[in-house]
Amino acid sequence: MAQQNAADIGLIGLAVMGQNLALNAADHGYSVAVFNRTTSVTDEWIEKIKTHEPSASRIIPTHDLRQLVASLKRPRKVIILVKAGAAVDAVVKQLLEAGIEKDDIVVDCGNSLWTDTIRREKEYASRCKFFGSGVSGGEVGARFGASMMPGGDPASWKHLQSIWEAVAAKVDVKTGKPLEDYAPGKPVQGGVPCTTYLGPDGAGHYVKMIHNGIEYIDMQLICEAYTLLGNLLGLKADELAKVFAHWNEGDLDSYLIQITADILQQHDPKHKNEFLVDYVLDAAGQKGTGKWTGVNALDMGIPANSIAEAVFARCLSALKDERVQASKQLKGPQTQTYSGNRDELINAVRQALYCSKICAYAQGFQLMREAQNEYKWKLNFAQIAAIWRGGCIIRARFLQKITDAYTRDSELVNLLLDPYFNEQISKGQAAWRQVVSLAAVNGIAAPAFMSALAYYDGYRSARLPANLLQAQRDYFGAHTYERTDEPRGHFFHMDWPEAGRPQVLVTKPAK
Amino acid sequence: MAQQNAADIGLIGLAVMGQNLALNAADHGYSVAVFNRTTSVTDEWIEKIKTHEPSASRIIPTHDLRQLVASLKRPRKVIILVKAGAAVDAVVKQLLEAGIEKDDIVVDCGNSLWTDTIRREKEYASRCKFFGSGVSGGEVGARFGASMMPGGDPASWKHLQSIWEAVAAKVDVKTGKPLEDYAPGKPVQGGVPCTTYLGPDGAGHYVKMIHNGIEYIDMQLICEAYTLLGNLLGLKADELAKVFAHWNEGDLDSYLIQITADILQQHDPKHKNEFLVDYVLDAAGQKGTGKWTGVNALDMGIPANSIAEAVFARCLSALKDERVQASKQLKGPQTQTYSGNRDELINAVRQALYCSKICAYAQGFQLMREAQNEYKWKLNFAQIAAIWRGGCIIRARFLQKITDAYTRDSELVNLLLDPYFNEQISKGQAAWRQVVSLAAVNGIAAPAFMSALAYYDGYRSARLPANLLQAQRDYFGAHTYERTDEPRGHFFHMDWPEAGRPQVLVTKPAK
Repeated sequence: MAQQNAADIGLIGLAVMGQNLALNAADHGYSVAVFNRTTSVTDEWIEKIKTHEPSASRIIPTHDLRQLVASLKRPRKVIILVKAGAAVDAVVKQLLEAGIEKDDIVVDCGNSLWTDTIRREKEYASRCKFFGSGVSGGEVGARFGASMMPGGDPASWKHLQSIWEAVAAKVDVKTGKPLEDYAPGKPVQGGVPCTTYLGPDGAGHYVKMIHNGIEYIDMQLICEAYTLLGNLLGLKADELAKVFAHWNEGDLDSYLIQITADILQQHDPKHKNEFLVDYVLDAAGQKGTGKWTGVNALDMGIPANSIAEAVFARCLSALKDERVQASKQLKGPQTQTYSGNRDELINAVRQALYCSKICAYAQGFQLMREAQNEYKWKLNFAQIAAIWRGGCIIRARFLQKITDAYTRDSELVNLLLDPYFNEQISKGQAAWRQVVSLAAVNGIAAPAFMSALAYYDGYRSARLPANLLQAQRDYFGAHTYERTDEPRGHFFHMDWPEAGRPQVLVTKPAK
Repeated sequence: MAQQNAADIGLIGLAVMGQNLALNAADHGYSVAVFNRTTSVTDEWIEKIKTHEPSASRIIPTHDLRQLVASLKRPRKVIILVKAGAAVDAVVKQLLEAGIEKDDIVVDCGNSLWTDTIRREKEYASRCKFFGSGVSGGEVGARFGASMMPGGDPASWKHLQSIWEAVAAKVDVKTGKPLEDYAPGKPVQGGVPCTTYLGPDGAGHYVKMIHNGIEYIDMQLICEAYTLLGNLLGLKADELAKVFAHWNEGDLDSYLIQITADILQQHDPKHKNEFLVDYVLDAAGQKGTGKWTGVNALDMGIPANSIAEAVFARCLSALKDERVQASKQLKGPQTQTYSGNRDELINAVRQALYCSKICAYAQGFQLMREAQNEYKWKLNFAQIAAIWRGGCIIRARFLQKITDAYTRDSELVNLLLDPYFNEQISKGQAAWRQVVSLAAVNGIAAPAFMSALAYYDGYRSARLPANLLQAQRDYFGAHTYERTDEPRGHFFHMDWPEAGRPQVLVTKPAK
């Protein structure tokens, strides 16, 4: 039975993420009052964890929200882990009816759209402190240490910080590598927690969205490496597993590469001598955060083309029946088994993947740079990369390099310009270009590798062919153009189309 | 002075598009009552056209909206040509106050978002017939014949049809080529008008948006051809003008290719022996309709990656100062002057452009196919391509081929599957692949060529690497997967990561 004012924190929504986050907090000594709309879920779960979760005694089941609210120490802190969207507002309103007060803190830990978080913070400001926090790491992260991305009222953060740092993943102080020696009731001790206060209102959920957009492209790049090596070298799943396991020892060391190696060596339960991956249907699902990132890039006018390509690649994969039909009619080149050195090609694909990955992250950080201008945040990019080093899906050795880059120069205009990343692309680009060329010539779809290369070559072009495009726009729509030999902000219009007609200065800005 | 009930149509908003559309209608014998918020604009324009516009007498200036409304025959028909957004609603409300009645037709001819048009039709339904029509063709199209894309209440269309057909561009009955022998007071006689009723509520504005999205990628493809030939062959603007003029005699025959040839031979007014295009700043502007198309593609989950790449290419071009800085630090390969046959490369780039163009249009039509399901429209794709043959920015010989394709098979799943387009890509793809390869190896950004190729190769792949991606999603998030050897809709979860663990059938759909 819940005691009055005794629990450290409340948690609403006992799906797997909620269950695990509650246990995680309990493992760190916090008492957690929990509530689920279907109360039998609560009871069954409590019954289940009793026997084998050492911290189960610190989980306090409640059966209505008044009880939950009454059980909390002040200021009350309640985590909501329900489906993003209308359910969040519904729960906040119920909490307000159940006794949540002005200084109490309601934290939305779901995958909410950052603009909803901005709106909610304002909307509820007179009645409670509404706070948003991204949580990445899937079920295991929630249970043993996630990457926590909090944003909201800074005063509220002071009350959350110790709990957030407790439930966050930890990385080694020196190496930045995740500390993963944990078990139920025995959380990681020491290490640097993967959480930091990111900024006001929607900053946390925005950073979480970018994390997910990057996750999309990270996964797509791995898929392209997988299909290129499979098609060009005829490697089977278990051979590819070895390649990825080997890559995981180098610069590409990351959770996604590691699980790829795991996945590729998984035998199929139905066909013992074959591999599961070969029986998995090639139709990808998505839950929307990658799409949000692409839409946001378009809205802000930031060229995050590779992230969008990763989303579109999933869309195209979902058209499975159409593709099967099309494959019977649309011809491509005969894919040639690569005649060169096998290990050299494997190495080239690794370099292509690494170079593309650098571009993808550059795009993600460009988005955050623009968003902080738009929303008047002050994001710390070194810290953001640092809290992604552990717990979350994109955790990788690579992120330490990003932290280093922004530590060297917090005002870095683009990740590509950092000396380390610049050098990596310098070293890898010949291979990258060769791999894109091989994909093109052999008819293997590689939208992410290609778009990343186009991004790199576009970004390093002092001159792009948009001069012609602006001239076209002026020709058919009198949209005007600027000139290379006149100051920016002076707009000209040519009296097209007959050659020799005068150009007209249309507007001159005020001095 | 405006007579009561005498004018055929009203027009609000006398910027260039409004002025020209009014004169266009007047040239066809319609009397047009016009109104502009700043009434001096109306007076000055009327004064100006008096002397040299043969149809000026049919333009009836009005100085307030009551006067405009009173001057119209019933049912009254009023075209609004104001800035998309809040201004449209403001004008409709003013019109309602000025006497517009239930059966009167208010036509928004601006670049409105189709969802606004859907909303407005509903919102004003009890007070007037709100109708939406896209207009493409820039100033010249508005004046002498535009591509008109109407959508709304079918009964209202009966009252608009003759006017729309009059002001629309005309194409030759047999060849489908635009008839362009016009002059003020002497509009084109005969021919097939480039307009047709597209569907209810937002259908017209939606089709117009797709037109603009396609326009973005059409322009970007031309820019990439331009930069590839310029860089690989060292061709100057006037030599490139000849290439484009030559292309304009073949399959690529189109308005945008033609104006490209015009633009490239335009000498610079400041430097007589040089070419204007070389002095135009390479920072592209945009007005948002391309972005809307990209956002819509992401929202509907349709892989229109090349259209999105074209929008991102403009975004990247706009980062001029960043690019100039980056160009000093980020190294690429030395671009090699192409050592092969010059004419062969020119021809290869032409084929790459044509193949990419086919993919870009395929994406645009896929979007419309999905939208008609979402909004319960019944779009006629053959007709849509037909009304784009004249008047609009993307007018091209090519569109006749699309009309032919959808005439052969109105249920065509993807333009790529039509025998003509399939054959064209079959013939051109080796060159296309070579060009993408050259771009990659030589460090020339070609995001549109590359994304179109990745789209083609992805679409024709019976198997994409999304199987690995789904396995990853199941590994870290228990998102489940389907199997190639089980019916669709059966979802499995593997108890990762240790090899050999059982997979679990998570859900089975109801029979």
